Amino acid sequence: MKLSQSFTKTTKTAPADEVSQSAKYLLRAGYIYKEMAGVYDYLPLGMRTLEKIIQIIREEMNAIGGEELRMTSLQPKDVWEASNRWDDKVMDVWFKTKLNAGGELGLAPTHEEPLTHVMKSYISSYKDLPIYVYQFQTKFRNELRAKSGIMRTREFMMKDLYSFSKNREEHNEFYEKCADSYIKIFNRLGIGDSTFRTFASGGSFSKFSDEFQTICDAGEDIIYLDRERGIAVNEEVYTDDVLNDLGLDKSKLEQHKAAEVGNIFTLGYKYSDALDLCYNDEDGKRQKVFMGSYGIGPSRVMGVIAEKLSDDKGLVWPEEIAPYKYYVVGIGEQGEAEAAKLHDMAPEDIILDDRKSARTGEKFADADLMGIPYRVVISDKTLAENKVEIKNRQTGETKLLTLTEFASKIS
Amino acid sequence: MKLSQSFTKTTKTAPADEVSQSAKYLLRAGYIYKEMAGVYDYLPLGMRTLEKIIQIIREEMNAIGGEELRMTSLQPKDVWEASNRWDDKVMDVWFKTKLNAGGELGLAPTHEEPLTHVMKSYISSYKDLPIYVYQFQTKFRNELRAKSGIMRTREFMMKDLYSFSKNREEHNEFYEKCADSYIKIFNRLGIGDSTFRTFASGGSFSKFSDEFQTICDAGEDIIYLDRERGIAVNEEVYTDDVLNDLGLDKSKLEQHKAAEVGNIFTLGYKYSDALDLCYNDEDGKRQKVFMGSYGIGPSRVMGVIAEKLSDDKGLVWPEEIAPYKYYVVGIGEQGEAEAAKLHDMAPEDIILDDRKSARTGEKFADADLMGIPYRVVISDKTLAENKVEIKNRQTGETKLLTLTEFASKIS
Repeated sequence: MKLSQSFTKTTKTAPADEVSQSAKYLLRAGYIYKEMAGVYDYLPLGMRTLEKIIQIIREEMNAIGGEELRMTSLQPKDVWEASNRWDDKVMDVWFKTKLNAGGELGLAPTHEEPLTHVMKSYISSYKDLPIYVYQFQTKFRNELRAKSGIMRTREFMMKDLYSFSKNREEHNEFYEKCADSYIKIFNRLGIGDSTFRTFASGGSFSKFSDEFQTICDAGEDIIYLDRERGIAVNEEVYTDDVLNDLGLDKSKLEQHKAAEVGNIFTLGYKYSDALDLCYNDEDGKRQKVFMGSYGIGPSRVMGVIAEKLSDDKGLVWPEEIAPYKYYVVGIGEQGEAEAAKLHDMAPEDIILDDRKSARTGEKFADADLMGIPYRVVISDKTLAENKVEIKNRQTGETKLLTLTEFASKIS
Repeated sequence: MKLSQSFTKTTKTAPADEVSQSAKYLLRAGYIYKEMAGVYDYLPLGMRTLEKIIQIIREEMNAIGGEELRMTSLQPKDVWEASNRWDDKVMDVWFKTKLNAGGELGLAPTHEEPLTHVMKSYISSYKDLPIYVYQFQTKFRNELRAKSGIMRTREFMMKDLYSFSKNREEHNEFYEKCADSYIKIFNRLGIGDSTFRTFASGGSFSKFSDEFQTICDAGEDIIYLDRERGIAVNEEVYTDDVLNDLGLDKSKLEQHKAAEVGNIFTLGYKYSDALDLCYNDEDGKRQKVFMGSYGIGPSRVMGVIAEKLSDDKGLVWPEEIAPYKYYVVGIGEQGEAEAAKLHDMAPEDIILDDRKSARTGEKFADADLMGIPYRVVISDKTLAENKVEIKNRQTGETKLLTLTEFASKIS
C-alpha cells in the first residue's frame, strides 16, 4: 500500500473524551473513527487488522469442526419471548425498533434463541448430532456507559459458536476441545503468554463457566492467577470453597486486573427447553438437546492487544495481525526508487511511505504510531553497501540486510 | 465438505408464503433460512456463495483504487439532520431506536452522510483528492412490503463505494472507470450476457444515473434495450426526448422485465454542501468536494442469479460463485472409498455426499437442487475402466474422465 494513495492521516491528538490509551492510538493512527461513544468505524488499517484476527479465529473454528453461517441482526420477538429474554428488565441491553408494516423488532445482542429455533428444522434424530456452528456477526448492546474505546462498545464484531450435543458427555468433550482451541487462538494472536483460562460463575447446568482473561491494566475484571498451573479464578467466584474445589493455594495466587477476551458456557437445556429443541435417541425416545456457547469478540481482542502491547510511541502489533508487516521508507532519489520497487513486489505486506509532504522524522514517528512490526529504511548510505536497514518495532533492534536477503523475505 | 457432517438438509417444500422461485430453491437447498418476511439467515452453503460474490466485487473495487473500510450501522441523528434525511417523511425506510443513555439513533439504510462527515477529518487540500472508499456492510431498510426472497429484503449485504473528487471532470473519469468495472463484475458473476447498463433518472447534478439491469422475469423494473449497442433505458425515463438525446431508435428497442443489480449516481455537491466538505485548491481557494456513489447488493445479486439461472430441478450456479464446484457420489464400497479419497484432496472444492441414509437417486436430486456445477459419480462400473463420470449441471452433458485426469483437475 502506498501511503500517498491512502486517505487516512495520522494526527497528534485524539478526541478529548477518549480515555483509553489503545483508543487514542487507534484513532490517531487512523485505524478507527469515532461515530459516537461506543460506536466506531473501522478505517482501512483497522479493517485489515480486524480481518486478520477474524481469519485466525475462523481457521481454528473450522479445525474443530465448526460450520460458518450468518444470522440476522433484526429479530422477531416471539423466539425471545419463549425464553423470557424479550423483556427489557430481563435483558437490559436491547435496542428495539418498529417495523413499518407493524410489530416490534429487536437488534440481536446474542443469538442463542434464533439459532435454537433454526435447529428445530434440522435436528430430529441422534444421527443429526452433534452440530457446531459459528458466525462472525455484528452485535448490538445498548450499554448505559460505553468506555475503553473498542474494548466495550455498543456495536461490535463477535464470533459466537454454538454447540448442540446429545448429552452432557458429548458436550464436555467439545467444550474442552474448544477451550484448547481458544488457547491456540490467543497464542497466534500474540497474547498467549498473558491470557489465562479463568473460572467464572456458571449457570443452572454447570458450577463454572470459563473465561479467557488477558492481564491488562485497562481491564474491568480482577483475577487470581496460579501461574504455575496456568489457570485463574475470577473475583466473582473467589471464595475459599471454590479455591478448595479447584485445589488452589491462596498464598500462591497473583491478583491482576484483566480483560475478558473470550468465554465459554455450558447452556445445558436452558434454550432447548424454552424452544423445545429435541431429538429422538437410538431407542426412539424424545430427548432435549444439550447446548453450549463459545464467544470471542474480535474487535474487543483488537482493543485489548492495542492496549496491552502499545508503548509510549504508539501501537505495537504482533506480526500475524499487523495490517502490514513492513513500513518502507526510501531516503534520497535512489532510495525512493528502490523502496518503490520493493513495495511493488509485495504490496500486501508493505506500507510504502512515499509522501512528499512528510519529513523522514515524521515518517519514522508514524511507523511507530501505526505499530508496523518492521521499519525498513533504504538510503544512499545503505545502498552503498547494497543493503537495507530493518528496525524491529517491538525490540528496537536494528540490523542490515542485503537487498537480496530482504527481497527473498517478502517474496 | 462431507455432507454427513453438515447440519443442513434439503427439503421438499418451502414456506407457504414464499412466492419467488429463487427463494423457494435457496430455502429448500439449505442456503438460507427465513427469520421473517424480508429477513434471511445465510446458512453455510449460502454464506459460501455470498462470500464468493463479495470477493469478486472486492477484487474489482481494489483494482480501480478503492480502499475498504467499514462504517457502523448505529447512526447518530445530527449528520442526517444536516442533509434533511433524518425525517421519516423524507426517508421512509428508517429503522430507528433509542439509546438507554438518552437520545435517538437510526440504523443506516445507506452511508453518504456519515462518510462525508468522516472525510471532513481527512480532506483539506486538493492533494488529498481524489478518494475512493468502499465497504461491504449490512443495510437496514424498513420496507413496507418485502418480497422476491433475497432480492428485496429489510436487512441485506451491500457494497457501497463513494468517490470524492476535485471537480466534475475528475468525477466523470472515475464514474466511467467504475461503470467498466461493474461490467467486468457481472461478467465474472456469470450474468454478463443479460446485464445491461441502463439510463435511469438522475438528480440535481446529472441528467441520468446508471443502473445495471439483468433481464429477469421476477424483476421489478421495465427496461428498453438496444441489444446492438448493449445499453438500455429504464421505463421511468423512457420518453421521446430521452431516446432522442441518446440517439436510440424506438423501433429497435426490446422491452424486458429486469432486476437492478447495481447502480451508480453522480451525487455532485449534495452532501458536501449539506455537511460542508471542502478542500483548498491550488490557488488556496475553498472548493466543495464533488461526490459519487456506486452500489451493488451481493445478496440481491445472489437472488437474481438464483432466479435467472435455475431450472425445473433447482439452482444452477456459475462456477465462480458455486459454494463448491463438484458434488461427488460414490456408489458401492470401492466407489465410496475412492470418492472419499478425492474429497480429501480438495475439501474446499468438493461436496462429498457420504450420507448413509440417502439413496443414489436422492443424492442426484440434491446435487441438482443445490446447483453444484459438476456431479461426479464413481461406481464399480466406472472404476472397472478406472474412470469417473462427470455431469455438467447446466448443459446436462456427461463424460468420462480417468481418475488421474479428474485428480489433476482438482489439485
